[in-house]
Amino acid sequence: MAGPRGAYRKTAERREQILDAAFEVFSKNGYSASSVNEIARTVGITQTGVLHHFSGGKTELLRAVLERRDQAAEGLLDHRTGRDFLAALVDISRTQREQRGVVQLYTILAAEATDPGHPARPYFTERFARIADAVTAAYEQVRAEGGLRDGVDPRRAAVSTLSSVEGLQLLWLNGLDVDIADDSARVISGFLVDPL
Amino acid sequence: MAGPRGAYRKTAERREQILDAAFEVFSKNGYSASSVNEIARTVGITQTGVLHHFSGGKTELLRAVLERRDQAAEGLLDHRTGRDFLAALVDISRTQREQRGVVQLYTILAAEATDPGHPARPYFTERFARIADAVTAAYEQVRAEGGLRDGVDPRRAAVSTLSSVEGLQLLWLNGLDVDIADDSARVISGFLVDPL
Repeated sequence: MAGPRGAYRKTAERREQILDAAFEVFSKNGYSASSVNEIARTVGITQTGVLHHFSGGKTELLRAVLERRDQAAEGLLDHRTGRDFLAALVDISRTQREQRGVVQLYTILAAEATDPGHPARPYFTERFARIADAVTAAYEQVRAEGGLRDGVDPRRAAVSTLSSVEGLQLLWLNGLDVDIADDSARVISGFLVDPL
Repeated sequence: MAGPRGAYRKTAERREQILDAAFEVFSKNGYSASSVNEIARTVGITQTGVLHHFSGGKTELLRAVLERRDQAAEGLLDHRTGRDFLAALVDISRTQREQRGVVQLYTILAAEATDPGHPARPYFTERFARIADAVTAAYEQVRAEGGLRDGVDPRRAAVSTLSSVEGLQLLWLNGLDVDIADDSARVISGFLVDPL
């Protein structure tokens, strides 16, 4: 009874299972200390079984895990501009308060990617540059509408916003009394005539 | 000729060599993927030779490397208060622009320490709490002298300052066009009546 359609669905389910396991193993060990073998054991299949679905091995698994995370966030930012875009950044931080494991994986990988030879390096370099540009554009639009405080440079405000968001995650995960959403909102509001 | 004094000096030199090697190996691999054996090979001695000087093994080596880093920074902050303290934070960032390897090791370890079971976890939790308190005290003193902008809460300003510094390091190491000293100074100045 399982025609091509059933086989396809089964493949998609197995891929999701493998990505769930990869996420769990990377979160626990960091990327460097993780192995395809451990990911396979977590799913309950062989290493060859994992490589059948992800022939690029550990590097491809990492990229797929990160892309799955970004898709959810990008849905929240789509078609937003100016203040709306900045408010959506805070909404993403609010969602992430409930996703400690994801934020932790992301934090460890972003730190490991500071090594220029790390396979996630291009992903993070491109990602930070892209987000910095998008946040700069949002502040520029706020300025065009007269909503930016005097003397605030959109690019520097974007760098401050992005660095605060990254730093707040690190402090939160290390036990400091911060609220990654409220404290991000406060930083952004510091650049605006009317707070968020 | 090598009396107790000479023997002591030799021990101190060997400890420094081992810490230099530990720093190099931790920087390259991160803590989790590093081994006492590799550190020993880098010095050109046996693993037993390393454990003779650091009987606590990898955990003790990590703590010693981090403490050595902090001593330099704390020298710059000693006896400073208020605006002077905040300006010294920027000076520390300026120094760190020339110490990419140290900042990278620190960034990776701080991220790994988000795992509550990591041996560096108590160090980072205590360190972030201590710095946040010291920066809060500095902003409180600035406020007492009338130098804080209206509506700025010293604690929240301290959290923003610390998160920005941490985040700027991460963005810098991942290739974004930030200046960890100038951008930190800009964040701090945003809370002050007169910029730094």
